[in-house]
Amino acid sequence: MLDQRNIADLNIDDVREAHARIKPYIHETPILTSSYFNELTGAELFFKCENFQKAGAFKVRGASNAVFGLSDEMARKGVATHSSGNHALSLSYAAGRRGIPCHVVMPRTAPEAKKAAVRGYGGIITECDPSTTSREAVFAEVQEVTGAEFVHPYNDPRVICGQATCSLEMLSQIDDMDAVIAPIGGGGMISGTCLTLSGLAPKVEIYAAEPDQADDAARSFRAGHIIADDAPDTIADGLKVPLKENTWHFVSHFVTDVLTASEQEIIDAMKLTWERMKIVMEPSCAVPMATILRNPEVFRGKRVGVVITGGNVDLNKLPWMKG
Amino acid sequence: MLDQRNIADLNIDDVREAHARIKPYIHETPILTSSYFNELTGAELFFKCENFQKAGAFKVRGASNAVFGLSDEMARKGVATHSSGNHALSLSYAAGRRGIPCHVVMPRTAPEAKKAAVRGYGGIITECDPSTTSREAVFAEVQEVTGAEFVHPYNDPRVICGQATCSLEMLSQIDDMDAVIAPIGGGGMISGTCLTLSGLAPKVEIYAAEPDQADDAARSFRAGHIIADDAPDTIADGLKVPLKENTWHFVSHFVTDVLTASEQEIIDAMKLTWERMKIVMEPSCAVPMATILRNPEVFRGKRVGVVITGGNVDLNKLPWMKG
Repeated sequence: MLDQRNIADLNIDDVREAHARIKPYIHETPILTSSYFNELTGAELFFKCENFQKAGAFKVRGASNAVFGLSDEMARKGVATHSSGNHALSLSYAAGRRGIPCHVVMPRTAPEAKKAAVRGYGGIITECDPSTTSREAVFAEVQEVTGAEFVHPYNDPRVICGQATCSLEMLSQIDDMDAVIAPIGGGGMISGTCLTLSGLAPKVEIYAAEPDQADDAARSFRAGHIIADDAPDTIADGLKVPLKENTWHFVSHFVTDVLTASEQEIIDAMKLTWERMKIVMEPSCAVPMATILRNPEVFRGKRVGVVITGGNVDLNKLPWMKG
Repeated sequence: MLDQRNIADLNIDDVREAHARIKPYIHETPILTSSYFNELTGAELFFKCENFQKAGAFKVRGASNAVFGLSDEMARKGVATHSSGNHALSLSYAAGRRGIPCHVVMPRTAPEAKKAAVRGYGGIITECDPSTTSREAVFAEVQEVTGAEFVHPYNDPRVICGQATCSLEMLSQIDDMDAVIAPIGGGGMISGTCLTLSGLAPKVEIYAAEPDQADDAARSFRAGHIIADDAPDTIADGLKVPLKENTWHFVSHFVTDVLTASEQEIIDAMKLTWERMKIVMEPSCAVPMATILRNPEVFRGKRVGVVITGGNVDLNKLPWMKG
């Protein structure tokens, strides 16, 4: 079974299988280009718009692969996770499409809007206190009672194979890519990118982008082992989580470099992208553009795939609005 | 010459010629779909994203057709228009691509951001007082001095043929459309839609959408002759201008119905579309969705192409933000 496979044994066939499995439940998202950004950066940029994805983010790829890969017997008991972000939405969406329960453990302090969004996709929320101890205890209880299959937001081979389908599409949509850049939090998207490109296009460079204020992946990359931040604070709130062993495998073996940007650079890149590309995207998605603008020499003259990872933002609280 | 042709003689060959002419300078914009909006409306909606178009709006189609259709001799003197909106941007962009001057007459009271945007595309601004008399006098002087070719924002057969290329693309992108809906201001986009569909798919219904507070097209449509509003006030500021004889020709002959929506319905539809579709679009573009939500029985069960006309908004002044 896929979830018991050694992470190093995953290969491009697993990605192709994942793609065939999830295709009915996801969008093949479009590529947008912008001559403005090409001129600004001196690179040719191809924006892969996963903000237009089902449930608003690429995470639906991994979640769908996990959900639709379950045997009927396992599926009957449903799936479970702890997340207050896009993974919770995505797993709820995928479970809903299969008609099975999705249990989500979420701190009672999480914004009501996020709880409502998960419930909107049919997720069943169990609240915990806002501490790791409480979350783990409540999650163990939910699993005990329901027998639901745990689907980790990123440290799960099924999830990584699902996220890998994004760059599989990019290879068919963009000719002669020289590099791909994507944000890095826990490393699910970057790991999937490494899995696909190492198998099909090993010369394509892979850049991971993260905030200066949550630069654990950059420090891990340079140190050669996982360094976890203690409660990082950044506007790119999807990128606060640390690498885990399965994603570290890919980051340490296949990533070209990890680049970082400041909070102000992220906000500026976010607003500029909304203005010029006319897309709604999360602060996390602006981190790659912010790092490209900070390191133009790395990308100049290259054809670069830029993964816009998600579009779930609170339109009443945009970071450039004074409030 | 095209600009001296009788408007009723335009046909689908003119549209195909326009498309071949402008193709190197425009995007074939993508179609997005949303199961959320399909469920909400009971229709199957296909959003044609002209907000991702060059210069941020469909107007670049008509402007490019006018600019690139000029003889070298005429082109040398440049083009001219009066507009403080997307037509000014688009004409400046197209003229820039051909390497000829673009003169724009604009009230000195127009927002600095709009002037900067026109200059950013290479447009040469001549300011006038904010009155029709002053605009006409200043424009006549600019034309006199430069000999530049006037390109009206919508009442120009070249512009209408250019806008018509949008629905030409939609016919190749969307199977079995039952209806198309687009906003109506001066009527350029709707006229182009009528031109293409009457030639290639005459059974497709054509709906025009406008604000209750600028419902001159709806009243004209019912009265059977042009009624111009006196200084209408609406958040959908691209839709304040009146129909003219060339666009009235198409509206009166080919439009199925003109539907309207309130200011609050427009704002709600705009915010909902940003939230669920993850696209930045102008208030004008929300008018079709607002009218679909007000008249669900008209669209239920139909496959409907919805033209998202442009994405040039001030991100510091969004209509749902207080302040």
